[in-house]
Amino acid sequence: MFSAMQESPLYPIVNPKQIAFFGASNSFAAMGTYLLASVQALGFPGTLYPIHPQEETVRHLKAYRSVLDVPFVPDLAIIVLPTRLVIQTLEQCGQKGIKHAIVVSAGFKEIGPEGSALEQELVATAKRYNIRFIGPNCIGVTNPHQLLNTTFMHYKGPAGWIGMASQSGSFVTQMFDYLARLDLGFSTAFSVGNEANIDVVDCLEYLGACPHTRVIALYLEGLRRGRDFVRVAREIVPHKPIVALYVGGSSAGMRAGRSHTGALAGPDRLYEGIFRQSGVLRARNITELFDFCWVLGTQPPAKGRNVVIQTHSGGPGATAADACGRAGLELPALSANSMARLASFLPHTGSINNPVDITYSKNPLDYFQPIPQTLLEDEKTDVLLMYFLLTPQNVTQRLEQEGLSQEEALTQAQMMIDLQAESIAQLAKQYPKPLLGYNFRGDDDPFTQGLIQRGVPVFSEPERAARAIEALVRYQELKQKIATQNVSLVEQALFCK
Amino acid sequence: MFSAMQESPLYPIVNPKQIAFFGASNSFAAMGTYLLASVQALGFPGTLYPIHPQEETVRHLKAYRSVLDVPFVPDLAIIVLPTRLVIQTLEQCGQKGIKHAIVVSAGFKEIGPEGSALEQELVATAKRYNIRFIGPNCIGVTNPHQLLNTTFMHYKGPAGWIGMASQSGSFVTQMFDYLARLDLGFSTAFSVGNEANIDVVDCLEYLGACPHTRVIALYLEGLRRGRDFVRVAREIVPHKPIVALYVGGSSAGMRAGRSHTGALAGPDRLYEGIFRQSGVLRARNITELFDFCWVLGTQPPAKGRNVVIQTHSGGPGATAADACGRAGLELPALSANSMARLASFLPHTGSINNPVDITYSKNPLDYFQPIPQTLLEDEKTDVLLMYFLLTPQNVTQRLEQEGLSQEEALTQAQMMIDLQAESIAQLAKQYPKPLLGYNFRGDDDPFTQGLIQRGVPVFSEPERAARAIEALVRYQELKQKIATQNVSLVEQALFCK
Repeated sequence: MFSAMQESPLYPIVNPKQIAFFGASNSFAAMGTYLLASVQALGFPGTLYPIHPQEETVRHLKAYRSVLDVPFVPDLAIIVLPTRLVIQTLEQCGQKGIKHAIVVSAGFKEIGPEGSALEQELVATAKRYNIRFIGPNCIGVTNPHQLLNTTFMHYKGPAGWIGMASQSGSFVTQMFDYLARLDLGFSTAFSVGNEANIDVVDCLEYLGACPHTRVIALYLEGLRRGRDFVRVAREIVPHKPIVALYVGGSSAGMRAGRSHTGALAGPDRLYEGIFRQSGVLRARNITELFDFCWVLGTQPPAKGRNVVIQTHSGGPGATAADACGRAGLELPALSANSMARLASFLPHTGSINNPVDITYSKNPLDYFQPIPQTLLEDEKTDVLLMYFLLTPQNVTQRLEQEGLSQEEALTQAQMMIDLQAESIAQLAKQYPKPLLGYNFRGDDDPFTQGLIQRGVPVFSEPERAARAIEALVRYQELKQKIATQNVSLVEQALFCK
Repeated sequence: MFSAMQESPLYPIVNPKQIAFFGASNSFAAMGTYLLASVQALGFPGTLYPIHPQEETVRHLKAYRSVLDVPFVPDLAIIVLPTRLVIQTLEQCGQKGIKHAIVVSAGFKEIGPEGSALEQELVATAKRYNIRFIGPNCIGVTNPHQLLNTTFMHYKGPAGWIGMASQSGSFVTQMFDYLARLDLGFSTAFSVGNEANIDVVDCLEYLGACPHTRVIALYLEGLRRGRDFVRVAREIVPHKPIVALYVGGSSAGMRAGRSHTGALAGPDRLYEGIFRQSGVLRARNITELFDFCWVLGTQPPAKGRNVVIQTHSGGPGATAADACGRAGLELPALSANSMARLASFLPHTGSINNPVDITYSKNPLDYFQPIPQTLLEDEKTDVLLMYFLLTPQNVTQRLEQEGLSQEEALTQAQMMIDLQAESIAQLAKQYPKPLLGYNFRGDDDPFTQGLIQRGVPVFSEPERAARAIEALVRYQELKQKIATQNVSLVEQALFCK
């Protein structure tokens, strides 16, 4: 493990000061133009040197006929040229003294034997000049902390704390908007492409050392350095959780994985074993990959598997209980003390079992303050999972029926939302126990957004919440296990000396 | 099975002309007021008789001191009164000659022995007057085709074709908005509550005969008449699919289910067997319940398990292939003819395997017309599953970069969306094969909405799409199997005579 991210060959790739840019023009017919536009759109503060055979300026930047004409030695080259021009361009970069590159261009190993030969030549060229590069056949990198985004999609959302290395570019770019809606963002994200030089293990190592990264997300279709992966992951896991989605487990996925980046996707069981040895949490799909990151990066550690569910409706409570059971979580009975405290808040139709089903609130704010507080204070509670109804709809509907205008009703509803969401957020801060919510809709409802933006994850299904809680619990177990094993390995090594 | 829904005791409950309404006042402190407001909000065209001990009018309707004072005999009573008043009110309804009721009030069997005794008395009272009723402890019914919605949430969205019977009221009301976003709606939905008189099997029987209902959705925590359920379901399945979510399978869910409506939730395996015998498709959660309904109600029958995936990005293709594999679907190789036809549309970086990964479009419209058309015409294709990128974002971003104003860019993007979505919708109409889409975000993106509103389901994860396709295939198998078994049972019966 690096003691600092600056030691990684990836550091200049995601923290460059001066970039030579190949393949952008003044027309959006060229993919390179998109990428350069993205770099400009996020406001990259360094210097950009577009290289173009004819143009004087490219997107309002002074252009150079050749990289050899650039007055300084850029610390990074980004190459988005037709396949046939890539090798000679890298050669020129080498002559110029550039030591790092992102090769976006495709048409290499992924297309078959002819492409493989080209890729070998690319690797040899890089070696000759000591160039470290990411790609080819990737869509670049994103480091919003440095205002750097070399992908074709504009970066949205905050500079975040999810570090990602992905064998598919889509799971970087297509997640910008998705993550922003969950108030999440990338610390740094790598699309590794064909991994001809830098691979996903190098990225993992970088992200392990990156101080902006709280959680690491991996999208994998195959690993070439399995042993190194295990070693690096085991060094990271005691300090930082790693979540991986591996695709290729079913025969259908395996076939698809192979044709995608040319990596040999091995059988599912093999990867299951690698993840187990590494202490890596395995997600079943993209939604879970980021759900696990979401809770791991926002919630305090879960002390155990005991979940208390708070609901005001039986069906949502039952489905959440069912989901928790299936995810391997426990639903303890509440302590006598908690039950006595709750009794005063619940109508006679309510239930003080777990799920705590209040059926309806005698006082609307009870649901958001004394009831969850009582549940958080119960010593049997490790995690509190709350069902959130569509407050704004109910509130505005009611207020409009009482004769308020739509505008007044919305203002009143917003005040109510702020009060309730703030109350929950305060409890979440006050008690060192995970507190999560769920409903049965998307994440765009104002109340849900009010909670999410205050750091309370709210899931559109109880299954997502239950699986995420289980990941939170399991990480504590894995962290402990791997740390203990690491110590014992070190002791063994010392003993052997 | 009823030959017409009019034969069902539920018919007057969801198709009433005159309703006596107990429990509404002029204050929203009373739950009954909400429910009456909902009935008014959807524009119920029949007559409403609020019964109130003091008020002259309730929500601008003439009120009556007693139901005995109402000048006609209403065909339905809705009772939203405190528990202690319910039995005497039903007694009065009986004296008046009312034969049908919805008892919303809670505080019966679900709260324990005291409530159970009350519930027995309620049942006895109904029996004395030949009253059929739904409830108690339910939230009422919705039949948007008759502009009837007796729940506390306003009905949203179109009058649809999903018939629902639910042992949780939340999975009726909380779905109004969710379904509307998928351009779906209920034909008729029942919250069955404690099922003291009318139960979920009665509702199933009604929905089987209801001509507005294409697909039946069930939320179950327990069945009291298992044998009848199997018999009724088997009569319906050859004509109409039934999808059920059963909760109670894990020990946690079982506990929660028991305290909810007082039904004894049996072990998971028992229900698995009941569903298998009945030809009922089992959903694992609420999302799946409605996903299955969505494809079953909008898509032509799937001839088999062969899915072709179209993508322009490797990772999304690989995850969809993986999801299809895990769901038990096949990904056939394309015919030589299709491969030859596709070759002209694909750049050299593309792949003509399945998934068909075009990487990027030489002509943007190819992705929406000739490529999917070729795939639909391939004789090996039973189902086409397409990945849809965030077109509007890409398009507006590009157009803004080219100097258009935001407004112009949005107008242009909308034109592009309409063109692309219309092209897909036309193909879906032209070829008798299911065509579904997926992406990695919600359903509120304009392009996704453009497709959904044209009848093309688009799922926010490939797993959802794959599971829904599998349900579509399985329904054809179940339909065939149950129909054949039914015929053979009839033959056996004839032979015995």
